[in-house]
Formats: sequence, structure tokens, C-alpha cells
Amino acid sequence: MKQSQLFTKTIKEDPKDETSLNAKLLTRGGFVYKEMAGVYTFLPLGLRVIEKIKQIIREELNAVGALEMKLTSLQQKENWEKTGRWDDKVVDDWFKTKLKNGTELGLAFTHEEALTNIMKNFVSSYKDLPIYTYQFQTKFRNELRAKSGLLRGREFIMKDLYDFSLTKEKHEEFYEKMKGVYKKIFNRIGIGDKTYLTISNGGTFSKYSFEFQTLCEAGEDILVFDKKKNIAINKDDFNDEVFKDFNINKKDYNFIEKKSAEVGDIYNLGDKYSKALGLTYADKDGKEKSIFMGSYGIGVPRVMAVVAEIYNDKNGLIWPESVAPFKVHLISLNQNKKAEKIYNDLQKQGIEVLYDDRDIAPGAKFADSDLIGIPYRIVISERSLKSGGVELKKRDKEKSEIIDVRKVIKKLG
Amino acid sequence: MKQSQLFTKTIKEDPKDETSLNAKLLTRGGFVYKEMAGVYTFLPLGLRVIEKIKQIIREELNAVGALEMKLTSLQQKENWEKTGRWDDKVVDDWFKTKLKNGTELGLAFTHEEALTNIMKNFVSSYKDLPIYTYQFQTKFRNELRAKSGLLRGREFIMKDLYDFSLTKEKHEEFYEKMKGVYKKIFNRIGIGDKTYLTISNGGTFSKYSFEFQTLCEAGEDILVFDKKKNIAINKDDFNDEVFKDFNINKKDYNFIEKKSAEVGDIYNLGDKYSKALGLTYADKDGKEKSIFMGSYGIGVPRVMAVVAEIYNDKNGLIWPESVAPFKVHLISLNQNKKAEKIYNDLQKQGIEVLYDDRDIAPGAKFADSDLIGIPYRIVISERSLKSGGVELKKRDKEKSEIIDVRKVIKKLG
Repeated sequence: MKQSQLFTKTIKEDPKDETSLNAKLLTRGGFVYKEMAGVYTFLPLGLRVIEKIKQIIREELNAVGALEMKLTSLQQKENWEKTGRWDDKVVDDWFKTKLKNGTELGLAFTHEEALTNIMKNFVSSYKDLPIYTYQFQTKFRNELRAKSGLLRGREFIMKDLYDFSLTKEKHEEFYEKMKGVYKKIFNRIGIGDKTYLTISNGGTFSKYSFEFQTLCEAGEDILVFDKKKNIAINKDDFNDEVFKDFNINKKDYNFIEKKSAEVGDIYNLGDKYSKALGLTYADKDGKEKSIFMGSYGIGVPRVMAVVAEIYNDKNGLIWPESVAPFKVHLISLNQNKKAEKIYNDLQKQGIEVLYDDRDIAPGAKFADSDLIGIPYRIVISERSLKSGGVELKKRDKEKSEIIDVRKVIKKLG
Repeated sequence: MKQSQLFTKTIKEDPKDETSLNAKLLTRGGFVYKEMAGVYTFLPLGLRVIEKIKQIIREELNAVGALEMKLTSLQQKENWEKTGRWDDKVVDDWFKTKLKNGTELGLAFTHEEALTNIMKNFVSSYKDLPIYTYQFQTKFRNELRAKSGLLRGREFIMKDLYDFSLTKEKHEEFYEKMKGVYKKIFNRIGIGDKTYLTISNGGTFSKYSFEFQTLCEAGEDILVFDKKKNIAINKDDFNDEVFKDFNINKKDYNFIEKKSAEVGDIYNLGDKYSKALGLTYADKDGKEKSIFMGSYGIGVPRVMAVVAEIYNDKNGLIWPESVAPFKVHLISLNQNKKAEKIYNDLQKQGIEVLYDDRDIAPGAKFADSDLIGIPYRIVISERSLKSGGVELKKRDKEKSEIIDVRKVIKKLG
């Protein structure tokens, strides 16, 4: 993409209505625009990051045989009444609306009810199970306060996967497998070494559930963890009962506390939803059986926000290559003819390039490049050409090197 | 994808609550599930078609330098009051909702207001223009009746592109260009020969606007057209004034009438939105100028519905290759070991295959295959192997051929 065509502009000053680092950096870099608290437009650069994160998630979920689909935001109350989740006293973050004839509708904050109901059309026998399916869909949550930038959204894209399993044991097998899948996803996104599988309160169906918590100053949770032994517990659940249940001898661990943000959660739903909505199957003997379910969420903009919180310096963002909007930022200092050739050559190699072809001062180009945070920067200038080529610099390194034009394309390819 | 993992099942009977052919076929084939009238879930097969259509649109829009972004569904009323579109008496298909503090919000039925407002952050000088940007985003429209299946949605994915141009003339240049881009898009989707650039009522800013209308029995419009001379007029606007304005001598044409569905529209917005929301730029002399805009829409599920309406026979759907959920339907009749190898080989060649590995009767497999409508069917059976390979048949042809396994992969690659 040529930067002269990119309509967004970077902003030098922190926006006054943002307190969180992620929203400040993402706004200043031209990744997002705040429509209202917790509701963000994704500008071209931001959408590219979102799509990169989605694609990593998609690849890992497809690899375990999960199928992508897309449910609806508008929801009829009937299914939600069956599970007791329609009432605003039970679920306090509904957005609701109405059809012209006065019929009340809800805007989905999650999709257990809708999906379980759909499955009644497709599941009757044990032969139809298991089913693993997921979607990337907007969730609407009427949060009273939404002040952590993209960490807490009122409208946000969520990946939610659901399993429909034959038995509690089969469900648990898949649940264990998903722990590994999530680790792989967070590793690929670049936050693996700061992300912990965290023991947390389990809710109705199991004593404990698991969250994926990433160490991050802007996080709303507190993580108690031992990095070396790779164990983490939500501070709220750090008590003798947990130690007993997980066979933890506190003396053997070196627990410390840090702030963290939840980037994923995996829930055991038992047969709550299948029972409430009448989703059953006939086993080999024709006996009617309950279906066991789990739900597995990742808030995509929240992951983007956590990456922004972790990867930055005083000059701006430093995207990990896997989720960067582009791999290369090509900057021309009055060498647009030669730069254009490099731009085309890089693109021919399938390398994603943002090419700064604008007629502005070098200092402004460098400042923009640091703020936007693309992993590799190539500068082509009279000076670099005299030294033998182009200047290549990684965003997270101080040093740069002069490198022959043909070699730089090979090196980055 | 292995069909044993595809949780959807085909349905033999037409669904009772659908009257339109598109919804009947798409429901029976397991492409969509109706959540409520005008609100459809996209099941795995359906989502694949939607993504194919989106990708064709995306490629053609990127080719003219338009940038993809994504706005929000939740909208504050402020911007809409400025253009006079907040009032339910003016716009009668709003869905509205509320924040916890009582603040009214709207669910976007279009995005002119939101986008124009965003652009105020990025446009100040003539150097910042033109801007071409688009999104695929859910639109919410509170239709009183929604009974044409996927042709009229209350919640649907729309591609909407907007241009922000320096002058009326520059805008019109782009507008003319977009006519060609849309033609290319509809050609690639496979409905080009039935789709007409149609003269229609223009609204506030120009006497006429243009729609893209596709001949289709389920359509809600009536098209008056001359196929040979490639001219079409919306029946409502077929009058002496149009003939005069477009220099049409009625006697020279062979106009006929047919039902049609609008698959795209391109609107000249003039400076209505930029003026109302205060989006201006300084020209070379520092003088404040108005920005001229256009909007260009394509309802993605509607296009899918029109394709379904056009491409079918008594046995089911017949997808054009460009938007088919898979290119090949591989059917094994008790030859799963050999079929598995072909499945893997096809995938290695980058060919998308649905592989029917299920343990059901051949007749049921063939019926499913015809209903789902994948362009190429490969059957591997004892009989085909004895005859020298696999049976290859196009969905829209009666005849099949026996072809060597290695050759079939080469042929389809």
C-alpha cells in the first residue's frame, strides 16, 4: 500500500478522552477511531491487524476440525427465556431492541442459546457427534463503564467456539486439547511467554475453569503465578482450597503477583444449555442422552490491545511480525523512482509493504514509521545508495545496516 | 472438508416457513438457517459462498485503490440529527437501543454519517483527497415485512464503498469508473449476462441514479430493457422524460419487461453529508470547499440469493465456480482408501474439495451432491475403477466421463 493513499494520519499528542495506553497508541497510529466508549471503528491499518489475528486463530481451529460459521446478532427472546438469561436482572449487559410490531429482540452478547437451538436441526443420533464449530461475530455488551480502551468493548469481534460432545469425558478430552490450541495461538500472536493458563472460578458445572491471562499493566485482573513452574491462579481464587485440589504445596513455589488481562477463556458448560433447549441424541441403544458442551472465547480487539500494551516504546508501537499490518515499511527520501521498483519487487515476492511515497520531511516519515511500528524499515536515500544500497532496520533494534537492494528482497522473502 | 465432519444435513422437503426459491434451496442444502424473518445464520457451506463473493468484491475494489476498513454498528444520534436522519418519521427502518444510562443509540442501517464524521479527523487540505474506502459490515434494517428469503434482510452483510472527491467532476469520474468495476464484479460472480446497469430515480442530488438489476423471478422490481442494445430502465421511471434526457427514440428499441432484483446501487450524494457534518477542505488558495461524495452498495447475501435463484434445477443448486463453496465434490462409494488419496492430492494442488466419506447409500450421496450444487463431481467406485479411473461430471451437464485418476487432478488444477 502506498502511504499517499492511506487516508489516516498519525497524531502527535495523546487523545484527551483515552486513559489506557493501548487506545492512546492505536489512536495515534491511525489504527482505530473511537465512536464512543467501548465502540471502535477499525481504520485500514487496524483492520489489517485484526484480520491477521483472526487468520492465526482460524488456522489453528481448522486444524482441529472445527468448522467456521456465522450466527446472527438479532436474537428472539424465546431461547433465552428457556435458559433464564433473558431477564435483565440475570444478565445485566443486554442491549435490546424491537421489531416494528413491538416484538422485543436482543443483541447477542454470546451465542450458546442460538447455536444450541440450531443444532436441534442437525443432531439426532450419536453418529452426529461430536460437533466443533466457531465464528467471528460481533458481540454487543452494554457495559456500564468502558474505559480500558479496546480491552473492554461494548461492541467487539469475538471468536467463540463451541463443542457438542457425546459424554462428559469426550467433552473433557476436547477441553484439554483446546488448552494446547490456545497456547499455540497466543504463541503465534507473540504473547505466549507472558500468557498463563490460569486456574479460576468454575461457575455452575465444574469447580474450576481456566482462563488465559496475559501479564499486562492495563489488565483488570491480578495474577498470582510462578513463571518457572508455569502455574498461575487468579488472585480471587488463590486460597487453601485451590492448593488442596491441585496438589500445590505453597512452599515449593515462588509465587508473585502482577496485573494481567484475560485474553481467552474456556468454559465447561455441562449439559445446561442442551438440557434447557432440548438438544439430545439417541445412543446406540436408542436411549435419549444429554449433550455436553463447552465454549471457548477470544476477544479479537482485546488481543490486539494487549499486544499494543506489551509491544511499544516511547516512540510508538512495535508489532510482532505475525500480526503486523505490514512486514516492511519502505521509506523513500527523494528516491521514489528507485523505491517504486523495490516496492514492486517486494510485492512480487508476496511481502506486504507500506511504501511511504509522500512528499514530506524525512523526520516526519521516521516518526510515523516508529509510531506505526512495522517490524522492518527500509530507507532508500541518496546517502544509502552512496553507501551501497538501502538501510535496513528492525523496529525493535537500534542498529541498522546498509544492504544491497537485491539482497534485501531475498533476506525478507 | 470431509462431509462426515460437516454437521449440517440436507433437507428433502421445502421448509414450510419459506416462500422464496432462494431461501428454500439454501435452507435445504444446509447453507443458511433462519433465525427469524430476514435474519439468517450462515452455516459452514453458506459462509464459504459469502466469503467467495466478498473476496471477488474486495479484489476489484482494492484494484481501484480503495482501502478496506470497518465501522461500528452502534451509533450515537448526534451525527444523524445533523443530517435529519435520526427521526423515525424520516427513516422508518431504524433499530434503536439504549446505553445503561438511558442514552439512545441506533444500529447503523448505512454509514454515510459515521464515515463523514470520521473523515473530519483526516481531511483538511486538497492534498488529502480523493479518498476511497469501503467495508463489509452488518446493516440492521427494521423492515416491516421480510419475506423474500435472503433478498431482503433485517440483518445482513453489506459492502459499502464511499468516495470523497475534490469536485463534482472528480466525483463523477469515479462514479463512471465504478460502473465498470461493478460490471466486472457481477461478471466474475456469474450473473453478468443477466445484470443491467439500470436508469433509476436519482433522489436529491442528480435527476437519475443507477442501479444494477439482475433478471430474476423473485425480484421485487420490474425492469424494462433491450438486451441487444444493453439498455435498461426501472419500470417506475420508464417515461417520456427519461427518453428525452437519455436521447432514446423508443421506436429504435425492442423493450421488454421482466422481474428483477437490485444487486447493487451507486449513488451520487453531492455535498449533502459533508455540508451537514462540516467536512470541508482548503483548496490551493486556502479557500474552504465542499467535498463531493458517492456511496456504492452491494448486499452480499442478496447476491448469494440471486445466484441461487438463477442457478438451479429441479435437483438443487448449481453454483458458478467462482462462488461455489467447493470446486469439487468427491464421492466415495466404498472406496474410501483410494478416495482419501485423491482428496489429499487435490488439496495439495490447492483445489477445494468436499469429500463425501460417509457410510450412507449411493443414492443419498448423489441427491445431496445435486442439492448442494458443487460444480465438479468426482465419483470413485468399484465400477469406475474397473472402467479405468473415476467418473467426472459437471453439475450442469448430463454426461459424465471416466478419467484416469492422475489426469483428473491435472484437469481440475
